[in-house]
Amino acid sequence: MTERISSVDTFDIRFPTSRHRDGSDAMNPFPDYSAAYLVLRSTAGAEGHGFVFTVGRGTEIEVAAIRSLAPMVVGQPVDALVADPGALARQLIGDSQIRWLGPEKGVVHMAAGALVNAVWDLAARRAGRPLWSLLAALTPEQIVAQIDWRYLRDALTEDEALTILRDAAPGKAERERTLLDEGYPAYTTTPGWLGYDDEKLARLCRQAVSDGYRLIKLKVGADLGDDVRRLAIARRAVGPDVGIAVDANQVWGVPDAIGWMRELAPFDPYWIEEPTSPDDVLGHAAIRSALAPIRIATGEHMHNAVMFKQLLQAGAADVVQIDACRVGGVNENLAILLLAAKFGVPVCPHAGGVGLCELVQHLAMFDFVAVSGTAESRAIEYVDHLHEHFTAPVRIANGRYVAPRTAGMSAQMLPATLAAYRYPDGPRWAGADPSDGGQR
Amino acid sequence: MTERISSVDTFDIRFPTSRHRDGSDAMNPFPDYSAAYLVLRSTAGAEGHGFVFTVGRGTEIEVAAIRSLAPMVVGQPVDALVADPGALARQLIGDSQIRWLGPEKGVVHMAAGALVNAVWDLAARRAGRPLWSLLAALTPEQIVAQIDWRYLRDALTEDEALTILRDAAPGKAERERTLLDEGYPAYTTTPGWLGYDDEKLARLCRQAVSDGYRLIKLKVGADLGDDVRRLAIARRAVGPDVGIAVDANQVWGVPDAIGWMRELAPFDPYWIEEPTSPDDVLGHAAIRSALAPIRIATGEHMHNAVMFKQLLQAGAADVVQIDACRVGGVNENLAILLLAAKFGVPVCPHAGGVGLCELVQHLAMFDFVAVSGTAESRAIEYVDHLHEHFTAPVRIANGRYVAPRTAGMSAQMLPATLAAYRYPDGPRWAGADPSDGGQR
Repeated sequence: MTERISSVDTFDIRFPTSRHRDGSDAMNPFPDYSAAYLVLRSTAGAEGHGFVFTVGRGTEIEVAAIRSLAPMVVGQPVDALVADPGALARQLIGDSQIRWLGPEKGVVHMAAGALVNAVWDLAARRAGRPLWSLLAALTPEQIVAQIDWRYLRDALTEDEALTILRDAAPGKAERERTLLDEGYPAYTTTPGWLGYDDEKLARLCRQAVSDGYRLIKLKVGADLGDDVRRLAIARRAVGPDVGIAVDANQVWGVPDAIGWMRELAPFDPYWIEEPTSPDDVLGHAAIRSALAPIRIATGEHMHNAVMFKQLLQAGAADVVQIDACRVGGVNENLAILLLAAKFGVPVCPHAGGVGLCELVQHLAMFDFVAVSGTAESRAIEYVDHLHEHFTAPVRIANGRYVAPRTAGMSAQMLPATLAAYRYPDGPRWAGADPSDGGQR
Repeated sequence: MTERISSVDTFDIRFPTSRHRDGSDAMNPFPDYSAAYLVLRSTAGAEGHGFVFTVGRGTEIEVAAIRSLAPMVVGQPVDALVADPGALARQLIGDSQIRWLGPEKGVVHMAAGALVNAVWDLAARRAGRPLWSLLAALTPEQIVAQIDWRYLRDALTEDEALTILRDAAPGKAERERTLLDEGYPAYTTTPGWLGYDDEKLARLCRQAVSDGYRLIKLKVGADLGDDVRRLAIARRAVGPDVGIAVDANQVWGVPDAIGWMRELAPFDPYWIEEPTSPDDVLGHAAIRSALAPIRIATGEHMHNAVMFKQLLQAGAADVVQIDACRVGGVNENLAILLLAAKFGVPVCPHAGGVGLCELVQHLAMFDFVAVSGTAESRAIEYVDHLHEHFTAPVRIANGRYVAPRTAGMSAQMLPATLAAYRYPDGPRWAGADPSDGGQR
């Protein structure tokens, strides 16, 4: 009997993080970190896990989208599926009726990405390898075949991608050993949430330095006076040699971003992240040009590779922040990593939330081993929330991600978590005010 | 008692249009024109109708999104709501948790747009005026106050918008009379669907000319040989003086678009529409530069005003094609009309589908009366499908839209239609193969 995908189970999982304002920023004052979570199961009992990270209300829409796409996965033969997840990605993203709701953006695109990621999780489990290692073992031709090139060739052709991957081949084995020995650089956003008071900010900044971080990040953009005060506190706490990135979470228009950041420039921000709408490539280019040499970082809300392509073509960013759950899954992120390599822009993945660290570390580590070949000027965001809910949580040592050795994409939540935090019927939520955890 | 919104009823309405390949193009071979439809009802029995146009599968996701947003509308006092729909638009689009699923794009943004449009429908009904006339009667200050300017000011400020509107004021009354007397230019896509055979194409082209159209549109991009043959047939049928626009529906990458269109250039295409990804502003600019003087048209899939802003800033399009259901409703389309006016680019709205003609005519007519002040080089798309399902269907005479006089936004479907075409339980669908109508 051919092994096939027999079911896609979905879960609406929400954590009441807004109670302590963990994750609070200028645009997200009260997030409840959540996930539209799914499990693929095969007729032989194999599993693949995936999810879309969300921040509370609306998770039910994302779950509905996953359910609508699931029939395209159920029944597929597992051997073929894991040998070529790109075929499924094209089918999910290219569905001629559902693509009207994107195309290649928002709810339906993220749902496709979660299913594609779950197939990669399944593929890596079957191969008995962590995903970064499975990807690094693919040939340049196999990687290139996993990407939809339709809209990318004016910036990067298949041949150029092959050259990038072949050029990186010689040092792969050595970098893999380095990665396993030393891990991959992290930076931390833990100190910088907007809802934390000054004392907590200073304490967490000092803690970050003593934990070995060389870069921290603060949320800005709600009140200029507060930002100046908080940056001064942070700079005092970390000293002159640790980088302080700042993150406005899209709160400004282009002229506001330029004006506000000029006031923060004396504190030597390492980058300004999401200074304006994530859709505004030309706006980012204008801000970058006005604020140089302050670096511009963006990407966590850029919805597909076409947007990243333009960001790079326009010279609009110094740092590309991929997200594991925003685009159409691993395959589209492979394209973005190759685009960034072509343009020589470092990738510093967005993480935090719930499970984003777990997923995206695999992509950064694959980039180090097989694409850019370097971790210089690169770091994965780290936030110390909610890792305890995963079967293979990330591990951090001396300000670095320890390379995962567990087979898969590190996407699996604990069964107890899926039971307790299921919304609205899990014990954590049943009977609670639906808007609790849940504040606006 | 204050009159309040008491309920939002939602409907998944689908028409089996794929049976005759009405609406077939290079990316949508078998669309089933559909709508995620909603009715606002007030405690006093007033109604506002709105919908998101969709093409079949996935309509249930859009309905789920409308249901998730509906609690923000229910309970609102009607007087305040209709006096300032922009306040609701900001609330729906800015919800700090739900915006993670966009932001300002895709399923959740279109759902917000449908609710906002329904409020405008309600406002126009209460005022006893068609929407175009209600909008045209607003002062420049009232129009400007309806727009979210956060991300637009680097291209268009509130003051510049006021100047555009004030400059258009003197001729308003005369243009309103002209509009009522003569209507607004239309062009027709009825002949050009990819699934029609050559005989039907030629016949419908001749019919279009005899019906008074000066511009028709053909779908292209599936097969170059077919496109050359079909364009030759169409050119022979309409003669040298009627424009033939062509529409690739995003099927090409940038180099493909340039190469393919060079082969079609001898047929003097009036514009090439959606030559590549709707997200690819810089790609459109490159295509435009390579293909000049062929016009570039796009917009039906551009997901928000920030994208239109960049399209105009980059000089990437000759024709801006607004869509009534893609962005965040009337309010965001007001911003796009003003941006187009600032940059001097004509707006030729996307329509067709189901109900898009009914809705968007109001925006084009408002543009004529109160913003651009001209219908020169402008036309609203017209397709003769499914108008019979509306209580106030569009009327076309001599290749022009007749200005609607019925109060509202012309959004209301017949009760019999809502009953019959409701998916999957309406009599048209119950018991049918769910993929019928419904082919891929």
